[in-house]
Amino acid sequence: MAQTLDEMSPRAALVEIARDFHARGWMAGTAGNLSARADPEHFWITASGRPKGRLDEGDFILVRVEDGAVVERSRAEQSPSAETVIHATLYALFPEANACLHGHSVAACLATARGTTKARALRLPPLEMIKGFDVWAPRPKTELPLFANHLDVKRIAHDVRTRFMRSPPTISALFVRDHGPTVWGRGLQEAYNRFEVLDFLLNYLARR
Amino acid sequence: MAQTLDEMSPRAALVEIARDFHARGWMAGTAGNLSARADPEHFWITASGRPKGRLDEGDFILVRVEDGAVVERSRAEQSPSAETVIHATLYALFPEANACLHGHSVAACLATARGTTKARALRLPPLEMIKGFDVWAPRPKTELPLFANHLDVKRIAHDVRTRFMRSPPTISALFVRDHGPTVWGRGLQEAYNRFEVLDFLLNYLARR
Amino acid sequence: MAQTLDEMSPRAALVEIARDFHARGWMAGTAGNLSARADPEHFWITASGRPKGRLDEGDFILVRVEDGAVVERSRAEQSPSAETVIHATLYALFPEANACLHGHSVAACLATARGTTKARALRLPPLEMIKGFDVWAPRPKTELPLFANHLDVKRIAHDVRTRFMRSPPTISALFVRDHGPTVWGRGLQEAYNRFEVLDFLLNYLARR
Amino acid sequence: MAQTLDEMSPRAALVEIARDFHARGWMAGTAGNLSARADPEHFWITASGRPKGRLDEGDFILVRVEDGAVVERSRAEQSPSAETVIHATLYALFPEANACLHGHSVAACLATARGTTKARALRLPPLEMIKGFDVWAPRPKTELPLFANHLDVKRIAHDVRTRFMRSPPTISALFVRDHGPTVWGRGLQEAYNRFEVLDFLLNYLARR
Repeated sequence: MAQTLDEMSPRAALVEIARDFHARGWMAGTAGNLSARADPEHFWITASGRPKGRLDEGDFILVRVEDGAVVERSRAEQSPSAETVIHATLYALFPEANACLHGHSVAACLATARGTTKARALRLPPLEMIKGFDVWAPRPKTELPLFANHLDVKRIAHDVRTRFMRSPPTISALFVRDHGPTVWGRGLQEAYNRFEVLDFLLNYLARR
Repeated sequence: MAQTLDEMSPRAALVEIARDFHARGWMAGTAGNLSARADPEHFWITASGRPKGRLDEGDFILVRVEDGAVVERSRAEQSPSAETVIHATLYALFPEANACLHGHSVAACLATARGTTKARALRLPPLEMIKGFDVWAPRPKTELPLFANHLDVKRIAHDVRTRFMRSPPTISALFVRDHGPTVWGRGLQEAYNRFEVLDFLLNYLARR
Repeated sequence: MAQTLDEMSPRAALVEIARDFHARGWMAGTAGNLSARADPEHFWITASGRPKGRLDEGDFILVRVEDGAVVERSRAEQSPSAETVIHATLYALFPEANACLHGHSVAACLATARGTTKARALRLPPLEMIKGFDVWAPRPKTELPLFANHLDVKRIAHDVRTRFMRSPPTISALFVRDHGPTVWGRGLQEAYNRFEVLDFLLNYLARR
Repeated sequence: MAQTLDEMSPRAALVEIARDFHARGWMAGTAGNLSARADPEHFWITASGRPKGRLDEGDFILVRVEDGAVVERSRAEQSPSAETVIHATLYALFPEANACLHGHSVAACLATARGTTKARALRLPPLEMIKGFDVWAPRPKTELPLFANHLDVKRIAHDVRTRFMRSPPTISALFVRDHGPTVWGRGLQEAYNRFEVLDFLLNYLARR
């Protein structure tokens, strides 16, 4: 086993993460999408509609950050995830982000469904675990940005871009209501670690 | 690993699904039964009373859709699952269905036990995950059909046939109260994906 | 993989069950004990104090049903589980029992801690799953016998013998309060299946 | 597989425990730290910031009990866990302790967050499982010592030393609020077993 996910080829690491997330119930059916930046202008992303416990490296498509255009694919019949535009938005906003993971979880949906449906953010609990997001304060009041879900994914991406350009998030994560968390990082290992950390925090809230 | 369950032989795929469902607690003891259509008139179904974490391909019996008659078996002492008649009913009703999975889960029993015992359907939560059932509406009001459990399985099958002939379900799933979900699909992979999706939705309801 | 646990040697099967139960959290630390009858007068049982995820066949000791005397052991320093007397009691009471599994689970402790501490039995929910205990009634009122826990295990065994000689249980299981379930069966596979079934039912009660 | 963790080299056993704890959600991201005494004056401890599901033996650093000074490391760029001072404190206080495991868990955080934030200890439930801590009383009133969390880890270590010198704990475990449990033992297997036992007890409290 490689020491970290960053020492593997990006697509091999994404296959491994998808299998892991599927086994944990974070990618039920074909839900979720994973990506890794190939170079400043392009990223690999999961093809649409594949069962996430059974991907191989041919299930990733190379697209352009600027406009989501397909640059390379192994299987002619495949198209990139419908949520590619959200990944592209995040890579464009955050040049230091090199990996972006989006899954679904029951606990996350429960935790974020509490309280008013108008809230723009969810206060995360001040557990030690929050340090996984590089938050180093005594009783931190960390907020997870919440966005409304829309059938038209471009609308979600537009909301993300608009809000984050005005006020960047304090942690590298967001949540689309009734849908699931998206977490990014400087590398695949960091994004993976932080996805686990966010899940821990949302589980705590869901069970409290 | 095959790319999808549909690229495996039906019985090999069913063995894999049974092991997977058993490990998740969806086939405790010998509970549950799985089938796949072999041709328009026949399907393979689990033999009765086998421990679901330890099946092999010889534990499936070929039966006729029309009347559930046994056409082929590997082990003379085995008979098809007592619930074969429900599978046969679904294959007869839905010619596009080629796979049918029935398991049990604590969360599913809890979610469906809420509310009145007379309800004929359970409203599923409008989570993004519902798209796994090909539901593409902004705030979908998807319903899971509920049926009463009977010791006489033919009575359950009769209720299913009668109701679905009058009003077909909007999703390819049903739930027998105090018993468990049955999910079908155009292929084994689709049925498997949708079983996971339904479990996600029922877990959400059970924990809400 | 053998088709059923009954096709393996008893000790090999017990090693496999212990690993499985440990992985599920039913044998945390060194908790729990497992046995299988070798012949009408003797049974193999786990040695005391071993970590249950790491047993081998040398960790089982052959004892006499009549008085629990040690007949054979692989490692001179080992003694049979402190709860051997409960297994011996059950094998003496039920000649058809050939395997006996005792574990611990959080859900089981929670479910049985509800209600008054004087109750002698817990009503199990009338789920389809109860058929795993050969209960075939429309709305069965199945009861799980409850016993008080005592530091002196012989006292528990005495209570079991006294009550079961007067009124045998309707299912092959009992529960010692604040402790854990014991399930027996005609063979290892049946005992294993029924342990899973009981866990399903107690989980349902704990979460209801 | 070795019969117990104590029959493996300490670092190989720590790698195995880290993978196991990560898979159970007790070491999300890079959280937690594990150590084993190498000789009376030194112990091996996890390097800081490594993903706990992917360690190898080179990820452990040999430090001195007396002052936490680094004595040996495989990778020049690594430093010992920020919480090394807590491990060193426990090894200095308890000469019989040879292994010390610290993880995080949602259930543990939930159980200890109940009640007043001033409580100095949490009463553990009198379940049979408590025997895993060598508690052999009929209705034991076992207490888990609680400590406040501080960004400055030396302050936690100071609180532990001060309190435990005055009144040693009755079990080999402590909990830092909003953070996680630390469990020690005479060997790695005992510490591992007890970590499982404590998790069982805290899960029970969290779900009650």
